[in-house]
Amino acid sequence: MTDAPMTTSAATATAGEVLSGYLTEQAGAFLRALPQAVGEAGARPGALPSVNSPAGTAGTGELLRAVRRIGGALHTFDALFEESWAQEARTELRWLLALLAQEPAYLRRSARLLAALDSLSSTAPAGEAGGPGMLAGHQGAPKARALLDRQLTLARTRAHSTVLQELRSSRLHALADRMTLLVGEAPLLAAAAGPAGEVLGPQAAGALGALDAAVQGLPLHRHAGAYRGDALHRLGPVGPAPVPAQSRSTPVDADAALAADDAPWHRARILLKRARYALEVCGRPTAEADALDQVLDRHQEAADAAVTAATAARTPRITPATAYVLGVVHADQRLEVEAARYAFGRQWPNPPHHGWHEWASA
Amino acid sequence: MTDAPMTTSAATATAGEVLSGYLTEQAGAFLRALPQAVGEAGARPGALPSVNSPAGTAGTGELLRAVRRIGGALHTFDALFEESWAQEARTELRWLLALLAQEPAYLRRSARLLAALDSLSSTAPAGEAGGPGMLAGHQGAPKARALLDRQLTLARTRAHSTVLQELRSSRLHALADRMTLLVGEAPLLAAAAGPAGEVLGPQAAGALGALDAAVQGLPLHRHAGAYRGDALHRLGPVGPAPVPAQSRSTPVDADAALAADDAPWHRARILLKRARYALEVCGRPTAEADALDQVLDRHQEAADAAVTAATAARTPRITPATAYVLGVVHADQRLEVEAARYAFGRQWPNPPHHGWHEWASA
Repeated sequence: MTDAPMTTSAATATAGEVLSGYLTEQAGAFLRALPQAVGEAGARPGALPSVNSPAGTAGTGELLRAVRRIGGALHTFDALFEESWAQEARTELRWLLALLAQEPAYLRRSARLLAALDSLSSTAPAGEAGGPGMLAGHQGAPKARALLDRQLTLARTRAHSTVLQELRSSRLHALADRMTLLVGEAPLLAAAAGPAGEVLGPQAAGALGALDAAVQGLPLHRHAGAYRGDALHRLGPVGPAPVPAQSRSTPVDADAALAADDAPWHRARILLKRARYALEVCGRPTAEADALDQVLDRHQEAADAAVTAATAARTPRITPATAYVLGVVHADQRLEVEAARYAFGRQWPNPPHHGWHEWASA
Repeated sequence: MTDAPMTTSAATATAGEVLSGYLTEQAGAFLRALPQAVGEAGARPGALPSVNSPAGTAGTGELLRAVRRIGGALHTFDALFEESWAQEARTELRWLLALLAQEPAYLRRSARLLAALDSLSSTAPAGEAGGPGMLAGHQGAPKARALLDRQLTLARTRAHSTVLQELRSSRLHALADRMTLLVGEAPLLAAAAGPAGEVLGPQAAGALGALDAAVQGLPLHRHAGAYRGDALHRLGPVGPAPVPAQSRSTPVDADAALAADDAPWHRARILLKRARYALEVCGRPTAEADALDQVLDRHQEAADAAVTAATAARTPRITPATAYVLGVVHADQRLEVEAARYAFGRQWPNPPHHGWHEWASA
C-alpha cells in the first residue's frame, strides 16, 4: 500500500479505502510485533541486551514503528474518524509509545555517550586515524565513562521493569483488541466515502502546513553559517524570536535555558513525523521527509545526551577530573545539536514548500 | 615604501636599495616605539593595564610589529646580508619578540577566556539576543571565572616583571644600537647590487613556496566540511598523515596530543607571516596574506586558551562544578580552533598558488 503511488489507487479508491488499507497494514504490523516484543522483554529479565547487540529489540522497534504511524494517521485524518474513538485510541497509543520508547532510547544514548567518550579518550597519535582525542590519557575519562554507564544502565533497568509490568496489563490487552478491530474495520465517518485525492489531500496538506509553520518559526538564520564562533555559548547570534514575559526577569538555570531553546525543534520533529506518515498514507514519496526526520532524531538524541552528561556532573562526591570530562562531553553533545540544526537548515527545502503541498493534494 | 608597488620602484632600484629602504623604515619604527614601550612598562609597575583598556600597550605593539618585520626580512633575504651579522641580529630580535609578546598575549587570552565564560554563563532567556549560555546559572561559572582571572593575572604579572628587568638590560641597549646602525646602513653583500626584481623576486618566491609546502602538508581535507560531527573528539575524520614511529606505541597525554596536532598549524602561521613580510618588501599586495594571518592568529590564540583552561582544571582543591565549567570552556576553545581551520581551508587560495609566486617574482 505505502509503495503504490496514490495517483493510481487514488484515482479509483475512496478516502476510506486508502485509510483503511494503511491502518490495516499498520495494525497488522502491530499485532505481529507485539508477541515478539513481549518475548524479548521476558527473555531478558535482568540481562539487558548489550549496547553492541540491540538486535534483541527488533520486535519493540517494529511495534514502535506501527504505533507512531497509526497515531499519526489518526491525528492527521481525524476528521474522518468517529471522534471519541479516535481520541481514545490516540491516548492509548501515546501511552504505549512513551512506555516502549524509553528503553531503546537509553540504549542509544548509552551507545552515543560511551562512543563519544571513547573517541574523546582515543590515544591514537596526532595524524593517525582520526587524530588524538581531546581527553587522550586524561585521568577523569575512565571514571566519567563508568559513571555514565552506571547511571544509564540503572535508568534502562528501571524502564525495562516498567515495560515488563505493563506488557501483562489489561490496558495493553485492550489496546491489542483495539488494533485487532482496526484490521479492515476502521470506524470511519461518511465523509471518508469521497474520492481519496479530494478528501485526504487537504488533510495531509494541513499536516505539511503545520510543519511548514513550525519550521518558519525556528531560528534557522542562527544556524545558516557553520561554526559562527559561538556555537556553544550563544547557540547562535541574535535571534528575534519572542520570549514569554515571565522568563525575562528570572535568571535561568542552564538546563532549563537549553530545554527552552530546544523545545521548538522537538516540536518540529513531531510535526515532521506526522507529515511523513501523512505522505505515506497518500502514497507520496517520503525520501526527503525521511532524511529530515533522521536529522531531527539526531538533534533530539544529542540534546538528551547533553542533559545526561550535565546531570551526571551533579552526582555527589565525583572528582574534579571526572566533572571536567563530563563538561567536555556535554559541550560535545551540544555541538552535535548545533551540527544537526545546521544540517536541517541546509536540507530543508528552499523555497520552503518545494512541492510538498502539491504531493499531498495532487 | 610599503605602499609603493615594486613594479615602479623595482624597475629602477637595486635590490639593496629596496631592502635598505624597508629596513630603514622598520628600524625607524623600532627606535620610535622603544622609548614609548619602556615608558609604558615603567608607568605600570604593578598596576597592569586592564583588559578593557589595552591602549596602554600601543608602544609595545608597534615595537613587536617592527621586530617581526625586520626579523622576517633578514630571514627571507638572508643571502643578501653578511651572514654572521644577520644571524646575530635575528637571534636578538627573536629574544625581544619572545620577551615582549608574552604580556599582550596573556592580556588577549584573558579577554578571550573571560568573554567566553561570560557568554557561556549568559542568563538571557532562550530566543533573546543570542539565547541562553550553556552554563546559564551554573554554580561553577563564577568560580571558574575567578580562577582563570587569577591565574592569567599572575602569569601576566610575571611576564611584566621580566620585561621590566630586561628593558634596562645591556642586551636591549645593544639591540637598539644595532637598529640605529640599520637605518640607512644595512650590511649588504655585493649580490644586492642587482636589479630589485631579479634579486628579491626569487627569494620572496622561496618564502611563498615554503608556506605553500607547509599548507599542502596540513590535513585540510579533515576540515573541508563544517562540523563533521566529531570536531571535538577526533579533530576531523581519518587523515593519511604519517606518524613518527616512536609515538605509535606510547599512550599520549591529552595536552601533548593536541599540541602535536596543532604544531603544523603553528608552523604554517610563522611561514605565513614571513611570506606576508616578503610581499611587503617587494611592494606586493598583502590583503590576502593579512586575512589568512588573522585566521591563524585566531587559531593560535584559541589553542593557547584551551591549554590554559585544561591547566586550570588541574588546580588542586577546585570543586567538581568548577572543573565541569572548565571542561566546557576547553571544548569551546577547541571548537574555535576547529572553526579557524575550517575558515583557513576556505580562504586559502585554490588552486594553491593563485598568483602569489607571480606577484613575488614578476
